Amino acid sequence: MRACELSAVGEFSHVERERPSIETDEVLVRIDRVGICGSDIHYYQNGENSGNVVDFPHVLGHESAGTVVEVGEDVIGVAESDRVAIEPGLPCEDCSYCENEDTYHLCEDMEYMSSPPTDGALVEYVAWPARYVYPLPESVSLREGALVEPLSVAMHACERAGVSAGDSVLVTGGGPIGQLVAEVAMARGAGQLVLTDVVAEKVRLAEERGVDFGVDVTEEDPVDVIREEVHENGVDVAIESSGADVAIETTTDAVKRGGDVVFVGVPIDASLPTDVVGLIGDEYDFRGSFRFSNTYPDAIEGIRSGRFDVDGIVSFERGFEETQEAFEQAAEPESVKGVVRVSDEL
Amino acid sequence: MRACELSAVGEFSHVERERPSIETDEVLVRIDRVGICGSDIHYYQNGENSGNVVDFPHVLGHESAGTVVEVGEDVIGVAESDRVAIEPGLPCEDCSYCENEDTYHLCEDMEYMSSPPTDGALVEYVAWPARYVYPLPESVSLREGALVEPLSVAMHACERAGVSAGDSVLVTGGGPIGQLVAEVAMARGAGQLVLTDVVAEKVRLAEERGVDFGVDVTEEDPVDVIREEVHENGVDVAIESSGADVAIETTTDAVKRGGDVVFVGVPIDASLPTDVVGLIGDEYDFRGSFRFSNTYPDAIEGIRSGRFDVDGIVSFERGFEETQEAFEQAAEPESVKGVVRVSDEL
Amino acid sequence: MRACELSAVGEFSHVERERPSIETDEVLVRIDRVGICGSDIHYYQNGENSGNVVDFPHVLGHESAGTVVEVGEDVIGVAESDRVAIEPGLPCEDCSYCENEDTYHLCEDMEYMSSPPTDGALVEYVAWPARYVYPLPESVSLREGALVEPLSVAMHACERAGVSAGDSVLVTGGGPIGQLVAEVAMARGAGQLVLTDVVAEKVRLAEERGVDFGVDVTEEDPVDVIREEVHENGVDVAIESSGADVAIETTTDAVKRGGDVVFVGVPIDASLPTDVVGLIGDEYDFRGSFRFSNTYPDAIEGIRSGRFDVDGIVSFERGFEETQEAFEQAAEPESVKGVVRVSDEL
Amino acid sequence: MRACELSAVGEFSHVERERPSIETDEVLVRIDRVGICGSDIHYYQNGENSGNVVDFPHVLGHESAGTVVEVGEDVIGVAESDRVAIEPGLPCEDCSYCENEDTYHLCEDMEYMSSPPTDGALVEYVAWPARYVYPLPESVSLREGALVEPLSVAMHACERAGVSAGDSVLVTGGGPIGQLVAEVAMARGAGQLVLTDVVAEKVRLAEERGVDFGVDVTEEDPVDVIREEVHENGVDVAIESSGADVAIETTTDAVKRGGDVVFVGVPIDASLPTDVVGLIGDEYDFRGSFRFSNTYPDAIEGIRSGRFDVDGIVSFERGFEETQEAFEQAAEPESVKGVVRVSDEL
Repeated sequence: MRACELSAVGEFSHVERERPSIETDEVLVRIDRVGICGSDIHYYQNGENSGNVVDFPHVLGHESAGTVVEVGEDVIGVAESDRVAIEPGLPCEDCSYCENEDTYHLCEDMEYMSSPPTDGALVEYVAWPARYVYPLPESVSLREGALVEPLSVAMHACERAGVSAGDSVLVTGGGPIGQLVAEVAMARGAGQLVLTDVVAEKVRLAEERGVDFGVDVTEEDPVDVIREEVHENGVDVAIESSGADVAIETTTDAVKRGGDVVFVGVPIDASLPTDVVGLIGDEYDFRGSFRFSNTYPDAIEGIRSGRFDVDGIVSFERGFEETQEAFEQAAEPESVKGVVRVSDEL
Repeated sequence: MRACELSAVGEFSHVERERPSIETDEVLVRIDRVGICGSDIHYYQNGENSGNVVDFPHVLGHESAGTVVEVGEDVIGVAESDRVAIEPGLPCEDCSYCENEDTYHLCEDMEYMSSPPTDGALVEYVAWPARYVYPLPESVSLREGALVEPLSVAMHACERAGVSAGDSVLVTGGGPIGQLVAEVAMARGAGQLVLTDVVAEKVRLAEERGVDFGVDVTEEDPVDVIREEVHENGVDVAIESSGADVAIETTTDAVKRGGDVVFVGVPIDASLPTDVVGLIGDEYDFRGSFRFSNTYPDAIEGIRSGRFDVDGIVSFERGFEETQEAFEQAAEPESVKGVVRVSDEL
Repeated sequence: MRACELSAVGEFSHVERERPSIETDEVLVRIDRVGICGSDIHYYQNGENSGNVVDFPHVLGHESAGTVVEVGEDVIGVAESDRVAIEPGLPCEDCSYCENEDTYHLCEDMEYMSSPPTDGALVEYVAWPARYVYPLPESVSLREGALVEPLSVAMHACERAGVSAGDSVLVTGGGPIGQLVAEVAMARGAGQLVLTDVVAEKVRLAEERGVDFGVDVTEEDPVDVIREEVHENGVDVAIESSGADVAIETTTDAVKRGGDVVFVGVPIDASLPTDVVGLIGDEYDFRGSFRFSNTYPDAIEGIRSGRFDVDGIVSFERGFEETQEAFEQAAEPESVKGVVRVSDEL
Repeated sequence: MRACELSAVGEFSHVERERPSIETDEVLVRIDRVGICGSDIHYYQNGENSGNVVDFPHVLGHESAGTVVEVGEDVIGVAESDRVAIEPGLPCEDCSYCENEDTYHLCEDMEYMSSPPTDGALVEYVAWPARYVYPLPESVSLREGALVEPLSVAMHACERAGVSAGDSVLVTGGGPIGQLVAEVAMARGAGQLVLTDVVAEKVRLAEERGVDFGVDVTEEDPVDVIREEVHENGVDVAIESSGADVAIETTTDAVKRGGDVVFVGVPIDASLPTDVVGLIGDEYDFRGSFRFSNTYPDAIEGIRSGRFDVDGIVSFERGFEETQEAFEQAAEPESVKGVVRVSDEL
């Protein structure tokens, strides 16, 4: 089968690999669409991400959907020719994190597609345990199926933030995660919603998708906007979705005393100054949000019913042979989400 | 009346002041006992604390109890000769923080005894609104009444941490707050409890009071102790009660993925490096804990019933005229809690 | 000591009994005030209540407060001369109900003052374990202390009902429990509150105490009042506090679909027809509410702070030697709460 | 199109009806499978159910699934040729019950398939709003799709009961609802599970499906079994799924003090004696459980993943022209669930 390998920093090579065989609890999925994540771009540009270093050659991509072409004999619930979204993490299913069914995403022995040394989805065929594979209703496209993964990240962040009806919410960052966090926050009944970015196009997209106040931080101070338009004390909740230093600082300036800040956008620098005196004095909650657990069924149903629009964040789609061009384009500031079309189904 | 003024950095002066008169909703309390808090020591030694600067002369002390000698005409629930604990904060009762009865401690217009410019309790008489004054049952001493304030800080921190039955808990710091946090955590049913300090006497005191593992960090690495004796993944909850840089770092090394770290010990430095990548990757909760709300009735009942022992953390008591010596002694590493005896009642 | 024995149906006799001696964990309380409960009246009039049959002679009274005159050597938290309220139930502290600290009131081996064969409080002295004895602040009178018991019943019923801010609540019955249930519901932030009775004076009292709609059911149909004045679907919650058949039926007519009905007023007849088809079709919750657990500290604090007014439900007070007259008067329809003054302290 | 009308008590007639046309928000579903519910049998045998009287001719059947053959222009999320389960209730979407998205099932203007005057699903084609139509993954059969309705009833009953990990649960009744309640309770982590019936085959089926103790009440007293094998105080939760008088009484004998009894099996008689004294004295919760809300996505996902087995409760399947024979067979005591095959797809 064809595989797209990251053969060196900044360089993809398309090669032939042996088509994987399946275990009795696995299905073989012909990959159709793969979304490009910020972490993929980091691996492509730097050969590492958050301290994980690539051992070349390596296959990227963990936002994927495709069609089942072979089914192991012990599989229930997934059939040949099912169109499916793939949950990219395989927890050990044996540790104390996995025993609690809500925390398997914290398993220390997790294998996660595209995180070295586990290969990702930019290949023709992937063998995957059927219990981490979710059939799509017909009205959900394979591209939407691939975007269940970033939607899951956003759903988990909003769950961590406890966004509930009437909450005022600041989302810093208008990339794919920020746009989807805003989408999920709106679906959870958020009151006034503010989204910030440094790129005007991303701010405008967020406004078109329904946020109350899109703030281009090169032109306006979001803290001023919040104090004047939302509440003099600040927002109830901030969800940092950019990983940018300045945005991280904005969150604590913008949230009210006793408010919650959820961090989901991973910064490149490992360390930032945190004001512990302020954390105490303003009684903030700072919560990390890492990947997700148990989100796929609700995410798929939410796409099907129209509750969540994921298609609207796609900036472009390119063919499998143009993966390198796709990554270059995805790295441009105006791009929100790029998608690679590994095959041509819908 | 006599008042003990901080007249300059490191210098107390006892002076005559006019005895305050009361409003119709206030009571006049003859102060009997005042506990010395770490923040009082900072003001004494540096003339400031967490950015609040003293305008000399200034009266310190916010852990206080005494006897009611006069009652305003609109007061219900407090009578002359009642022995009472004084809740030291007066919120504005009008802002959105005060409207939610659980968050009045976050009121931005709070007047708090001993925080400049509000004078504290190291005086003979204090006029105070009766609704922030709590009668003590006879078996609760005035010294215990004064210690309801630090007990409240500990109760609030454990509430913020959500300590519940069976949780393993690390408390960093064996000063008064750390000792009381451990006490409250035990009363809430904590499973294994670890307390650390750099002073052997404080570690030993904690062990005598019932913590499972007292760790002198000059001799042992608490993270090793936890991994070996408590759980290989770390503790469920850490409550940072020292304000010390090294202890702050210990908490995140010691807590399991997905665990909670509550910060209640205020550091002197305003800023410390926080690993946002780690906050996300290990999905921690960092929660500030600031003062308290609605704790006094339960705190007093808990002292009365024997659920909470506060007397056991008192290192020494000194008379009013020896306030300066009391502060010097309280600042010594082996001291846990010093108390000033303003009058001689019990 | 003097004791007031129920010597036969409808007949009290004052006799001499030996003053009890205390165990090491007990205190001896000189009884000052005893409230008369509906169950006491049932025992007095019928020699039985809810199937519990009196073995004469028997001492009634379980709403009591008094002054501590002797303290066992192992007692902490209660001192001689403390004025105290007595929690009248002694659970076994060993069964599975007692192991869960919220359900000790369900202990099957509970000894409860005045429930045969356990004697009640209409005597000069009671020996009682100190951990079920609660000191009163000075501004709380002994009469208020005696009424902590019925207040506790009302607090537990409102907790079972989950009354929360804005809920519309129907209370059927304007006797002591109904009046106090209304008081507690108001303190929990109930929205519109309706109270019904067949006695005009009780309805008027409830209105004076703050209920929005007092309904004399001999003159108006409370269901009509609710549909017109509160909500066309009915109230959110009904709390049946009368034990009367017609009121029991009113609750289910008056509550909205999906609403909650709490039963706290014990009917004399053991059995009433319940419409299971309706229970299902309207998805009601019917919840029994039996006595209480862990209420005393909050009840006492609520009386002290003025949150709960219990004095206002007292219809009359009589001396110890007039106990029989007090019971006769308490049984009259206009009486809400009668109190026996065993001694003359306040 | 063909339609199966109930033309008189005990008599079905197959007739021609006009094929319905769709609104812009509807889909036209070609019905494939219809499950027979106990309420359908009541209508067939008595012409009424719980006070709802049939106006002949009337179409029964509300457990249905089929294939979409036409899609209104405003529909999103459902496509032509989708295999779908139909949620049979149409709430008004405008009242206060509907405004709260969790309580639309209590809407007083609900139109519910097969409840007079709304026709049911025993016809070739049904027009239905797309938002109450749920696509099935390919591995979920149309027969399973039809059984999403009774599975939803069971899920809602377990939710009302609050079944959680380790709870001991009694299910009275081994018909379709009882069998599915047991299935859902097991999936929610119930500890020991007891199911009773008067028919040995139903008890045996429950045991084969995993309940810990199947009790044939013609041979054993379930209360004895529970006291000896589960807990001397009784079970934590009972879910009455039979509607039989004797079983209703068993639930309160079998549940511990403070326990919960959920009623989901609708009795034929409208009224049964309930012991209010016992309800209070044992502090029970009696909760009606009526239909369901928001269950379809989780039910379908649970069938797909193997978490819920619904196929195993099907006793027989018959063709559309044999509807009358199917109802006769379904009414026999040994039958659990009968299914009518309206078309021949899978």
